[in-house]
Amino acid sequence: MLRMSTLLLRTLRDDPADAEVASHRLLVRAGFVRRISAGVYSWLPLGYRTFRKIEQVVREEMDSAGFQEVHFPALLPKEPYESTNRWTEYGPDLFRLKDRKGNDYLLGPTHEEMFTLMVKGEFSSYKDLPLSIYQIQTKYRDEPRPRSGIIRGREFVMKDSYSFDLDDAGLEASYNKHRQAYIKTFDRLGLKYNIVSAMSGAMGGSKSEEFLAPCPTGEDTYVLCKACGYAANVEAMICKVTPYQGEKVGAIELLDTPNTPTIDSLVEILNKKYSASITAANTLKNVLLMADEKPIAVLVPGDREVDLKRLGANLPEVKDLRLFEDADFAKYPKLVKGYVGPQDAKALGVSVYADPRVSQDSVWVTGGNKKDVHARNVTCGRDFKVEHYVEAAEVKAGDNCPSCDKPVIIDRAIEIGHIFQLGKKYAEALGLTVLDKEGKPRVVTMGSYGIGVSRAVAAIAEQTYDELGLCWPAEIAPVDVHIVATGKEDQPFEVAEQIALDLEAKGLEVLLDDRREASAGVKFKDAELIGVPKIIIVGKSLADGKVEIRDRKSSDKVEVALADVVKTLVK
Amino acid sequence: MLRMSTLLLRTLRDDPADAEVASHRLLVRAGFVRRISAGVYSWLPLGYRTFRKIEQVVREEMDSAGFQEVHFPALLPKEPYESTNRWTEYGPDLFRLKDRKGNDYLLGPTHEEMFTLMVKGEFSSYKDLPLSIYQIQTKYRDEPRPRSGIIRGREFVMKDSYSFDLDDAGLEASYNKHRQAYIKTFDRLGLKYNIVSAMSGAMGGSKSEEFLAPCPTGEDTYVLCKACGYAANVEAMICKVTPYQGEKVGAIELLDTPNTPTIDSLVEILNKKYSASITAANTLKNVLLMADEKPIAVLVPGDREVDLKRLGANLPEVKDLRLFEDADFAKYPKLVKGYVGPQDAKALGVSVYADPRVSQDSVWVTGGNKKDVHARNVTCGRDFKVEHYVEAAEVKAGDNCPSCDKPVIIDRAIEIGHIFQLGKKYAEALGLTVLDKEGKPRVVTMGSYGIGVSRAVAAIAEQTYDELGLCWPAEIAPVDVHIVATGKEDQPFEVAEQIALDLEAKGLEVLLDDRREASAGVKFKDAELIGVPKIIIVGKSLADGKVEIRDRKSSDKVEVALADVVKTLVK
Repeated sequence: MLRMSTLLLRTLRDDPADAEVASHRLLVRAGFVRRISAGVYSWLPLGYRTFRKIEQVVREEMDSAGFQEVHFPALLPKEPYESTNRWTEYGPDLFRLKDRKGNDYLLGPTHEEMFTLMVKGEFSSYKDLPLSIYQIQTKYRDEPRPRSGIIRGREFVMKDSYSFDLDDAGLEASYNKHRQAYIKTFDRLGLKYNIVSAMSGAMGGSKSEEFLAPCPTGEDTYVLCKACGYAANVEAMICKVTPYQGEKVGAIELLDTPNTPTIDSLVEILNKKYSASITAANTLKNVLLMADEKPIAVLVPGDREVDLKRLGANLPEVKDLRLFEDADFAKYPKLVKGYVGPQDAKALGVSVYADPRVSQDSVWVTGGNKKDVHARNVTCGRDFKVEHYVEAAEVKAGDNCPSCDKPVIIDRAIEIGHIFQLGKKYAEALGLTVLDKEGKPRVVTMGSYGIGVSRAVAAIAEQTYDELGLCWPAEIAPVDVHIVATGKEDQPFEVAEQIALDLEAKGLEVLLDDRREASAGVKFKDAELIGVPKIIIVGKSLADGKVEIRDRKSSDKVEVALADVVKTLVK
Repeated sequence: MLRMSTLLLRTLRDDPADAEVASHRLLVRAGFVRRISAGVYSWLPLGYRTFRKIEQVVREEMDSAGFQEVHFPALLPKEPYESTNRWTEYGPDLFRLKDRKGNDYLLGPTHEEMFTLMVKGEFSSYKDLPLSIYQIQTKYRDEPRPRSGIIRGREFVMKDSYSFDLDDAGLEASYNKHRQAYIKTFDRLGLKYNIVSAMSGAMGGSKSEEFLAPCPTGEDTYVLCKACGYAANVEAMICKVTPYQGEKVGAIELLDTPNTPTIDSLVEILNKKYSASITAANTLKNVLLMADEKPIAVLVPGDREVDLKRLGANLPEVKDLRLFEDADFAKYPKLVKGYVGPQDAKALGVSVYADPRVSQDSVWVTGGNKKDVHARNVTCGRDFKVEHYVEAAEVKAGDNCPSCDKPVIIDRAIEIGHIFQLGKKYAEALGLTVLDKEGKPRVVTMGSYGIGVSRAVAAIAEQTYDELGLCWPAEIAPVDVHIVATGKEDQPFEVAEQIALDLEAKGLEVLLDDRREASAGVKFKDAELIGVPKIIIVGKSLADGKVEIRDRKSSDKVEVALADVVKTLVK
């Protein structure tokens, strides 16, 4: 039994100064967590109870799916991460340190390498597969901007699983098993979530989905079609293109368009000076970027921006992608800033990438490759060739759903899980092979699957809190019942104590507010803030041999005879 | 149910090359742990199950004692550890690192600072005390010589508790509560242990005891009296001194003793040349040391060495203690190496410390403070004064028990727990005060209490293994029952499967050896190596409708009718 009189808990009346989101604010105020340093938190008793309940749900669902629990250190030697190049690729997000002998170590951000090596160390035959193993473990990432309390921390707890299979069909089966286990897990945790495509199927076949818990202050934005249920994160959204329906036009015509470096100024001068009747959507933006230090032009309709994150995610082979800077224009003097057009791409020395909306035969107004000059009637396929189509344009609410053509919305969410067909990258880098039926070595194919365990505490808080405070689902509340004894007499305290003992005898966990000095008002406010689903008030109605049972979520109150309390709560 | 056909487990026939102790050897061979780097291990499924069972026993006993569980990060900012000076004092044992902004962090070796600050942040009144809080958490120490597998690692899991009290009486009560909780915990874990005094009561009153699990390869040596049960670690052993009984002697006599830099050579020349009848025990060794760069002489009988660890532990005020080096002799030319005597201490500029055996009126042969000269009849109290008595001499088996005077033995053990009255050191350094009844601020007094959770896996293995392999106590075995199906027919496998399901239905955990290709011999050897307490063999006796149940520890075998298997094991 937890007693408020001795519990390490001081609820706070005021919001912490650094709290941006409700879960952070309330978890601090209700005494669940405390900040140690940026993105690093400690757990007080109530918080750790909820954390451990979530951990237990995750563990039970992984075990019941037949996945085996293992455990790795967080302090890891450099070498495996050098073999996969992640020691370098991870950049400043990786916490690196040296031991007393000067050897390099890191604090594990994820454990693909270690899992791969573990399986390599134990297994060697196709008969040993499939295998799915997991751990629940503390991870470290030196986030550039840790925020939202425990939602984006630098030390946090993840469940990470990895599957090992002989072939793609096996990987697909393991992936689906994890997907099912995740659905069960998040359902038990009482989370609302969408399963969101996280990578275009066109990009090499490796499948990936995110479990996103909708939440207005979430960091992740994603596309949702309320009509058909299609959901994708913004990077993975596929734009819906209808073939060009317009008329064919004559040859390119050059136009004198002084001082039109922006789309708006261009549209204005065209409509005024050249009596055109166009909108920004009829113009073609040529966004110049350096892709691994080679110049590329990315073509998008003038009413859209290039979404660099989306573009980058869809060009995984490009390691370093950045917008043109003045120095780049200086190096490529033929590229006239604000007046570039794709019709002279070869001569200009740039590769042409385009958003799928720049479709065959489509006609555009675009740059004339001379200062103050634009060109019209520029026709895709006739006047310029697109070398690579790529999802590059920003996604907007109201864009057409690629599945059912209805307008999509853009929603915010917290990522609570991620499932991913890794393929052979790690097995190849670290030499994980097994002998197949014919005795030939075959590289194993892997999946990786993560659940943010500490983050789930905050995600659930975000989805369930109300104006009174936290409001936990029964399965993960720090205790099952919060009993408040009120008044100045001994009797309510004695009765409350007896109810607590009776409930405990039935296997319920109880928090008993046995404070003699706090007022009833303070106790009620604390109970609401802490958010245990059932609250028993032992006070006034005791004169009638009754106590009040409140439902924290619905605020429903019932008076129950003392003899019926246990029965009412245990059923 | 775990199945050997799919379990991530490959037992090894050979001992790992780096294994020095049995637990390390067997935990690796039985597939419980794997080495990642020096002192850093990962857990395979069987090992992690046993680890988690121990963790659970520890947690249950802490909870049932009323201690509250919290959880701190391992990645900690420098500042609190600077306030207590431990950032520096910890030296190279501390893993230090910088984050991307260049801020200093450490990986927590223990969490006194953080617990102190947590209580400071929440509590402020004497009414909030006493409080005992704990965590079960990963710790980091950059050991100079990590060894014995998971016994002395660099990343390991500890349960650490801290108590907070208003006064010494409260601290004593909290200390005793922890002591009782530790006794219960280690009893449940099936460990044999001694509770050993870890610091002389004379050293400022702060009490400390270690829980040592006897084990021939243990790293800790301690003194044990089998007659009365007195136990102390070597540092804390108090030597038993009988007052000097010999006759009074005449004045100091100087003796010509060329080439006698050692005690043996001195005894020989005295007995031959001066017809003395002495042993090394009659001579007085003057061991010169620098204590915080001041010269001290430590006097011990010539038949004993100074035990530097023991001396250091008993001089806690001395930070830097080291033997004289040639450079020191050069600085103090009056100190003649091999011929120092305490009779001229003042003139020589050294402080005189002595082992208690150098008692009032005792008479000695010692150095004459000139090369090749010794002195006899040198009488303590008359010819020299001891400034400080200190436990400095090595402890030997056969020394008298300070409690009952019988000879003690020296035993080896693994430290599994430590309880310690910290006092006010951390509360003072970090400003943890509460208001007392009179409204005056009072510095809180603290205790710290540790259990090596991961280490306990190895300690239990050490105390229970036999020539066949590991041999777990029921409470912490990875599973309750290991079922081995043998033969080439389907029937034993089907029967074994059904028994497994029946046992699971009764709440028992089962490991089923369902491998079709492994021989019965291989399966028996694996079962013995893994060490589950009960082994069921489903094979030959199936013809008579029976299976064999083996007790792993006693090797007792009984044949049991199929219908009685569950009943036999569940009772």
